[in-house]
Amino acid sequence: MGLNLTQKIIKDHLLEGEMISGNEIGIKIDQTLTQDSTGTMAYLQLEAMEIDKVKTKRSVAYIDHNMLQQGFENADDHKYIQTVAHKHGVYFSRPGNGICHQVHLERFGVPGETLLGSDSHTPTGGGIGMLAIGAGGLDVAVAMGGGTYYITMPKVVNVKLTGNLRPFVTAKDIILEVLRIMTVKGGVGKVIEYTGDGVSTLSVPERATITNMGAELGATTSIFQSDEVTHSFLKAQDRDELWKELKADSDAVYDETINIDLNELEPLLAMPHSPDNVEKVANIAGLKVDQVCIGSCTNSSYLDMMKVSKILKGKTVNPNVSLVIAPGSKQVLNMLAQNGALADMIAAGARILESGCGPCIGMGQAPATEAVTLRTFNRNFKGRCGTVSAGAYLLSPETAAVSALAGELTDPMTCTTDIDVTMPDKFYINDNMVVPPAEDGSKVEVVKGPNIKPFPLNEELKDNVEGKALIIVEDNITTDHIMPSNAKLLPFRSNIPHLANYCLTPCDEEFPARAKANGGGMIVGGDNYGQGSSREHAALVPLYLGIKAVLAKSFARIHKANLINSGILPLTFADINDYDTISLNDELKMENVIDQVKSGKIIVHNESKKLDYEMNIELSDKELKMILAGGKINFIKNM
Amino acid sequence: MGLNLTQKIIKDHLLEGEMISGNEIGIKIDQTLTQDSTGTMAYLQLEAMEIDKVKTKRSVAYIDHNMLQQGFENADDHKYIQTVAHKHGVYFSRPGNGICHQVHLERFGVPGETLLGSDSHTPTGGGIGMLAIGAGGLDVAVAMGGGTYYITMPKVVNVKLTGNLRPFVTAKDIILEVLRIMTVKGGVGKVIEYTGDGVSTLSVPERATITNMGAELGATTSIFQSDEVTHSFLKAQDRDELWKELKADSDAVYDETINIDLNELEPLLAMPHSPDNVEKVANIAGLKVDQVCIGSCTNSSYLDMMKVSKILKGKTVNPNVSLVIAPGSKQVLNMLAQNGALADMIAAGARILESGCGPCIGMGQAPATEAVTLRTFNRNFKGRCGTVSAGAYLLSPETAAVSALAGELTDPMTCTTDIDVTMPDKFYINDNMVVPPAEDGSKVEVVKGPNIKPFPLNEELKDNVEGKALIIVEDNITTDHIMPSNAKLLPFRSNIPHLANYCLTPCDEEFPARAKANGGGMIVGGDNYGQGSSREHAALVPLYLGIKAVLAKSFARIHKANLINSGILPLTFADINDYDTISLNDELKMENVIDQVKSGKIIVHNESKKLDYEMNIELSDKELKMILAGGKINFIKNM
Repeated sequence: MGLNLTQKIIKDHLLEGEMISGNEIGIKIDQTLTQDSTGTMAYLQLEAMEIDKVKTKRSVAYIDHNMLQQGFENADDHKYIQTVAHKHGVYFSRPGNGICHQVHLERFGVPGETLLGSDSHTPTGGGIGMLAIGAGGLDVAVAMGGGTYYITMPKVVNVKLTGNLRPFVTAKDIILEVLRIMTVKGGVGKVIEYTGDGVSTLSVPERATITNMGAELGATTSIFQSDEVTHSFLKAQDRDELWKELKADSDAVYDETINIDLNELEPLLAMPHSPDNVEKVANIAGLKVDQVCIGSCTNSSYLDMMKVSKILKGKTVNPNVSLVIAPGSKQVLNMLAQNGALADMIAAGARILESGCGPCIGMGQAPATEAVTLRTFNRNFKGRCGTVSAGAYLLSPETAAVSALAGELTDPMTCTTDIDVTMPDKFYINDNMVVPPAEDGSKVEVVKGPNIKPFPLNEELKDNVEGKALIIVEDNITTDHIMPSNAKLLPFRSNIPHLANYCLTPCDEEFPARAKANGGGMIVGGDNYGQGSSREHAALVPLYLGIKAVLAKSFARIHKANLINSGILPLTFADINDYDTISLNDELKMENVIDQVKSGKIIVHNESKKLDYEMNIELSDKELKMILAGGKINFIKNM
Repeated sequence: MGLNLTQKIIKDHLLEGEMISGNEIGIKIDQTLTQDSTGTMAYLQLEAMEIDKVKTKRSVAYIDHNMLQQGFENADDHKYIQTVAHKHGVYFSRPGNGICHQVHLERFGVPGETLLGSDSHTPTGGGIGMLAIGAGGLDVAVAMGGGTYYITMPKVVNVKLTGNLRPFVTAKDIILEVLRIMTVKGGVGKVIEYTGDGVSTLSVPERATITNMGAELGATTSIFQSDEVTHSFLKAQDRDELWKELKADSDAVYDETINIDLNELEPLLAMPHSPDNVEKVANIAGLKVDQVCIGSCTNSSYLDMMKVSKILKGKTVNPNVSLVIAPGSKQVLNMLAQNGALADMIAAGARILESGCGPCIGMGQAPATEAVTLRTFNRNFKGRCGTVSAGAYLLSPETAAVSALAGELTDPMTCTTDIDVTMPDKFYINDNMVVPPAEDGSKVEVVKGPNIKPFPLNEELKDNVEGKALIIVEDNITTDHIMPSNAKLLPFRSNIPHLANYCLTPCDEEFPARAKANGGGMIVGGDNYGQGSSREHAALVPLYLGIKAVLAKSFARIHKANLINSGILPLTFADINDYDTISLNDELKMENVIDQVKSGKIIVHNESKKLDYEMNIELSDKELKMILAGGKINFIKNM
């Protein structure tokens, strides 16, 4: 039985487990990338693991998220990432060099290799046949240290493309169509593999638009074959030698197949407030538009920008529209500045932003109250644009540009401008904004501004664990309760001591002070404790506050894993009625902990109430080792 | 006796008073400009005056300050300004079109005309021989309504320039030399007029750098003659017909003369934290640099940018430096994008920002902790860059660019690059980002987002005034106490009801609530009440809270004027010991107020203490009329 492309690359990188979908497997990671908003924590974790030099083939640290720099925190983060990267063997892409996914595709991605990135849109790399996966900072740090990356062996969906796109119908419309069919939950546990004769009609940037926004399906990743189109792209990037042909076997088997006839596609858009709320542009044409934003890791390539420029040339942006354009990389911006396309955009009245994530992540360009904002981005969740009352529509650069001129949502198929653009034979190559790592990292001083605090580290599990019940919370507590995240707290992602002052404060304002006064203790939770976002900080901050165990009726899956990663015991009540007998500040105690944890059962004495509670702790072999070592980083360090 | 140029233009525009320095004179204003951070209030005031159409020759509303758009407030402000301008006969310069002073110089300024702008760097217009003065929003609103502008007849300083600048010595070094000589207080009550044979060697953008930064002298304005250099500039801007020759009479008399030999000047800079803390670049060369910012209304012309581009071409910004460049206008940016200069900047690693004020006003690009930041801007007050621990150095674009490459402060005279740039015969003219006013304003709907609240209006003075002593404050209360201004409150400059919740809260957190609960009342102050910034809001917010009078030992001059503009009685104790007899919430009462105010004396009854206080109220004839009318706007409306 033949293999599909996904299976082939996994097979090439398999270190542990069997390739049966649903099984846990461990794979080798060739390359990593980080961006600045998740990167600081990843490098603090790398430092905590005491790894001198990364063990990947290539690791790159990008600055693309926090480039507005409203306070010293952003610039301090940039300097920390630059120096820590320089010391530990990581390439550093300076602010202004572009969006991580766009730059990585242009200058670093290699067909057939694995890429782990601390950003959910890392699958962009699938556009040149990489197996490119987004992950948390700790996973990326472990991979930089040479550690295995564990995932569930995915199912593979075959999205078979046939025919040709008509003019003004785009790659964005393909991924919107896939989102319409599969929904934002449809990709969970799956890799989306694009096949069919339509694939060869799509350039690398078009393929990358599709794999990028595949993240919105909830998919593990998305991937295209590496073929002559890929070859030409790499050749034009002066990276010819890295190309190899990669495709599924002719008798490859897939878990699911979706057929899309490119000839039949029409311009689509995602209506507020979900990327799968897909509609035909023609059906809502005429909608009055206040803002148009072109760029982001989804649609900021040279190809996209050239088409936009051709549409705008010699015209004027409608007076009621603010049009902002952020080319995806220094390479793209530089080429547009050289060939006059940027001048055409500026002449038409476009506001040119730095190459970065910008408005896509709500960093600036918040539209007006109740505005209609058209965006070539990948997400349109309510409030993400910075204005809760606004409605964001996701669509192609072509639809965006024609609508910016008209002042209303316009079907681009009504446009008569010639927007034919051929991919360049040679891109403008100038990597001077990428700082290579130091030859001798030992001489590099890592600069940590006052906002950058060390990563909290746990200790080996002790045989006696005791402490007060510092807080008792109800059912369905989210990670947003445990570690609130908002505009005020976001610049402090690298400052656990500061964030700790807000831990669980939506439930009890006094909790952080109480935890500090008692030198730590335990949390008592209800059902589904830790649901919601996968936020690592919801475990790191309790660790900093000295939390040794969480006693709950049940845990949300990811938060339980994060607690284990931090070496905090996740205990569930054998009898949930015991929950009601615990009062705030009760003295809790466990003895002979190491043996008990190994057995999966543990007795907690409530010294204040003179009661004993039977608790369960369910751990895989690997998790047990982490708990005993005092968390994942100690576990890795000891390996 | 001959007249200097300042006197000639004033004479041409004199409506009231005698041209004797120190006398109050009233002049006619030909043009106005506003920017967005002060503009919203100016247009709310214009609306409150119920003026259908501005009566100036030309009024322009610019958007250049708040372009980061971190929340809906900025975009709402833009939309309000756009629609209110469209309705009332004001030209609207769309966001992205550039910095008000740069664009006004290029496209709207007229030699010999008067310009009033709600921005302190309005004197930039003096570069083409305008009498261009910065003022508060209310003054600009009154001028838009056709009202007279009142100033103290200034003294005129003759700064006589002889010789020629050497290569890499610049206009910035001239104004830094003037600042070194005169200090930041040296220009108060004066106009700085540049004369001598050195003037003809300076292009219009160079002259504008000098008049722009003349604001740092505290001067009323600065001015250059209108000569063949001015003529060529206007011709290249396709505005030939607006030129006329203007210069001082050969026997003109000046109050003061300063001689500067251009041949002897060296590259200078202003050290932290004051623009007059001037030093030679050579003396501190070698200082390690973290950030370099090029742009702002001082140094963002085509000429400046072309020189910077030539220095950067083919090189790479030092890896430890973040270089940001913000060209001053769409015209400049567009020309750089057309001729390849922008591509050279990008290739070297410069981060290109939108055409706007940006980092100069702390809108983004805050440097790292304790950073050294070199800036071509006009102000380097502590913390203005967004990072309190950073040190900002003000210098020329040439010094900035060579230092960005070197990574350390570098004397540009050591640079061997040919940076000779000639002024273009023809600038790229494209005014499509300027929206002309509607022909029929009555049909235009003004859009006011939820953050834009009406301007508070007082009523005619009543004959009986009573209310409680709502707060009693000590000596030297500043306008920062009365109306705090910080990053949190700045987006609410157009929202007096919101700001009112912070009025005097640094003195007493309960004051706003108490004032509201009592439907207004009176403030009791000590000596020098209302010192500090000239902030209008420190009078508008008390007006909104129903404050009818402030009883103080003495007033700071500008705050007293602002109270009068708002129709709030500024009363001083005849016997300052009376201050000590007033308690919080004492009932205060005045009768027969109108006649008493006219007499300059007024009795305040303290009903609670059964005491009478003799108070003084000193008003000019015009001020008396304003107080009787209930403030300046009512006074104007009734005219």
